[in-house]
Amino acid sequence: MSPANPVLVEATRGGLVESRHRGAYAVVDAAGRLVAARGEIGRVTFPRSSMKILQAIPLIESGAADAFACTPAELALACASHSGEAMHVEAVGAWLARIGRGEADLVCGPQMPAYVPAAEAMIREGRHPCRLHNNCSGKHAGFLTLARHLGARAAGYNRREHPVQQAVFAAVAGLTGAGEDMAFGIDGCAAPAPALPLQGLALAMARIAAPDGLPPARAEAVSRLRAAMAAHPELVAGTGRACTRLMRAAAPGTVVKVGAEAVYIGILPALGLGLALKIDDGGTRAAELLVAALLDRFGQIRPEARGDIADLLAPLLRNWAGDEVGALRLAPDWA
Amino acid sequence: MSPANPVLVEATRGGLVESRHRGAYAVVDAAGRLVAARGEIGRVTFPRSSMKILQAIPLIESGAADAFACTPAELALACASHSGEAMHVEAVGAWLARIGRGEADLVCGPQMPAYVPAAEAMIREGRHPCRLHNNCSGKHAGFLTLARHLGARAAGYNRREHPVQQAVFAAVAGLTGAGEDMAFGIDGCAAPAPALPLQGLALAMARIAAPDGLPPARAEAVSRLRAAMAAHPELVAGTGRACTRLMRAAAPGTVVKVGAEAVYIGILPALGLGLALKIDDGGTRAAELLVAALLDRFGQIRPEARGDIADLLAPLLRNWAGDEVGALRLAPDWA
Repeated sequence: MSPANPVLVEATRGGLVESRHRGAYAVVDAAGRLVAARGEIGRVTFPRSSMKILQAIPLIESGAADAFACTPAELALACASHSGEAMHVEAVGAWLARIGRGEADLVCGPQMPAYVPAAEAMIREGRHPCRLHNNCSGKHAGFLTLARHLGARAAGYNRREHPVQQAVFAAVAGLTGAGEDMAFGIDGCAAPAPALPLQGLALAMARIAAPDGLPPARAEAVSRLRAAMAAHPELVAGTGRACTRLMRAAAPGTVVKVGAEAVYIGILPALGLGLALKIDDGGTRAAELLVAALLDRFGQIRPEARGDIADLLAPLLRNWAGDEVGALRLAPDWA
Repeated sequence: MSPANPVLVEATRGGLVESRHRGAYAVVDAAGRLVAARGEIGRVTFPRSSMKILQAIPLIESGAADAFACTPAELALACASHSGEAMHVEAVGAWLARIGRGEADLVCGPQMPAYVPAAEAMIREGRHPCRLHNNCSGKHAGFLTLARHLGARAAGYNRREHPVQQAVFAAVAGLTGAGEDMAFGIDGCAAPAPALPLQGLALAMARIAAPDGLPPARAEAVSRLRAAMAAHPELVAGTGRACTRLMRAAAPGTVVKVGAEAVYIGILPALGLGLALKIDDGGTRAAELLVAALLDRFGQIRPEARGDIADLLAPLLRNWAGDEVGALRLAPDWA
């Protein structure tokens, strides 16, 4: 039994603590030095969608992105967990058409858009979501682009032994320090989901924040991906989503990205730091507060934008009548 | 700092543990003897909707339920967190009409039905939910019935000093052993949400399971409420919901009831036991597995019904394509 991670976030009601979220986080520089940390940062974690920027590296390094004239918007979508809004779905559809592929080539299943107006419009009109609506469809479009460029078959592009995933795992291993034989599960979108120590995930993000120590081609690749995400926060998540709003409020070039089961990464180029966090129980509400708090603690929220994310920095809990009944707050010894 | 509660439930992916839920539970008899427990069972907890049966006691004891000819179905709705299906909404509406009250008297806010087909029909038809759709509307109908019977004004029936809540807090105190001055917050439905030790919540449920030691009027009141819930599992929650399905699969007369932020109670009349559990982080998926496992451990799942709740006893996690990618399971030292 490893020791319990500390309580990092509390939900209150009537002035009492109602629920508690434990977790761990690491903030590191590109040399791997710990700048801040709590909890068991060596624990093996599934980064899930928080690591999509790592999974997109071969798309650039292979030359596939340039061969198929991928735009920065498409690169952002390759690193996105999008909300299934028209801007996301149409862009992924157009990208696939340009490389001679289509929705039927995607292995991710259909998913209702997270953007409520889009989901409601679909229900009203009797339409059903397709695989393009899956929040990971941009990542899969990137995989299919890479497969095409490598001359590999499209079918099975999500299998660990396929050239696409071989390249992806090599890139993930290279930046995180994990072995290429790292464990993996299957993600919600049917792609492999690598598992690695939380600290390694933070290190990879620090190396993207300060890429000078990387081989030039890799430094260029991660910088292009980071810049594409930072330039298109609305494509990385969507209208009203925490990732999108935090990136808009943060210092220029900053990237944050959520992963399922309450993982978050941050890339802080202004400081040359990377961060990774995981809430033990998978509670995304706690992960969102913690990443906002870490950006704030390191001075990465632009002062004039604080008001735009006041609800992310200090979330209130309201009842169905709209009255404030509690709050989500940082636990006393979170830092 | 109190010690950390044990990990009771784990979410796995690819054979590894991805997320962990800590918590506490107590199984007690009507004399308060612990039959089984894990974690810090003295910790103050908001039972939320899991305690609706306690909040409905004055509806019976006051004579209000009989004066207004409340049916067992209505008593079940008074103790319910319903899914906003037609059977729920219409029954609460008819009940309110019979006592000369209406939707406008309810202080609970409007809430989309949890039952997806009902929500989708509403969206398709351009309708909006009203307060009758709030999962707590039956509890509020009970409060309004009590107010009417007491000759108290309807307005403000959710305020702590209103005669309705005075009676409710007295009943909660009487069965749980908490003082009437117990702390409280405001619930999602704008009613007071008492806070009390988890063990006290379990004790109250044991006293309902084996009411012989209670004053006769109270014993009769809690037995009527328990029987009403057990007779109408579809009204206590709704189609496909865990509470409904577990009650149908359990020994006759058994009641289980969820509360927000991952609380569950169980009333086991066949054994004269009560149980209460709370997952620290508010993760309902873990609370549902744990209550199913506790019913099973105490032999309260009917053998011929096991197949009906196989997915509750051993939940699988699937991706958007429908493939099994992990599971929710009991942690090694849950028992």
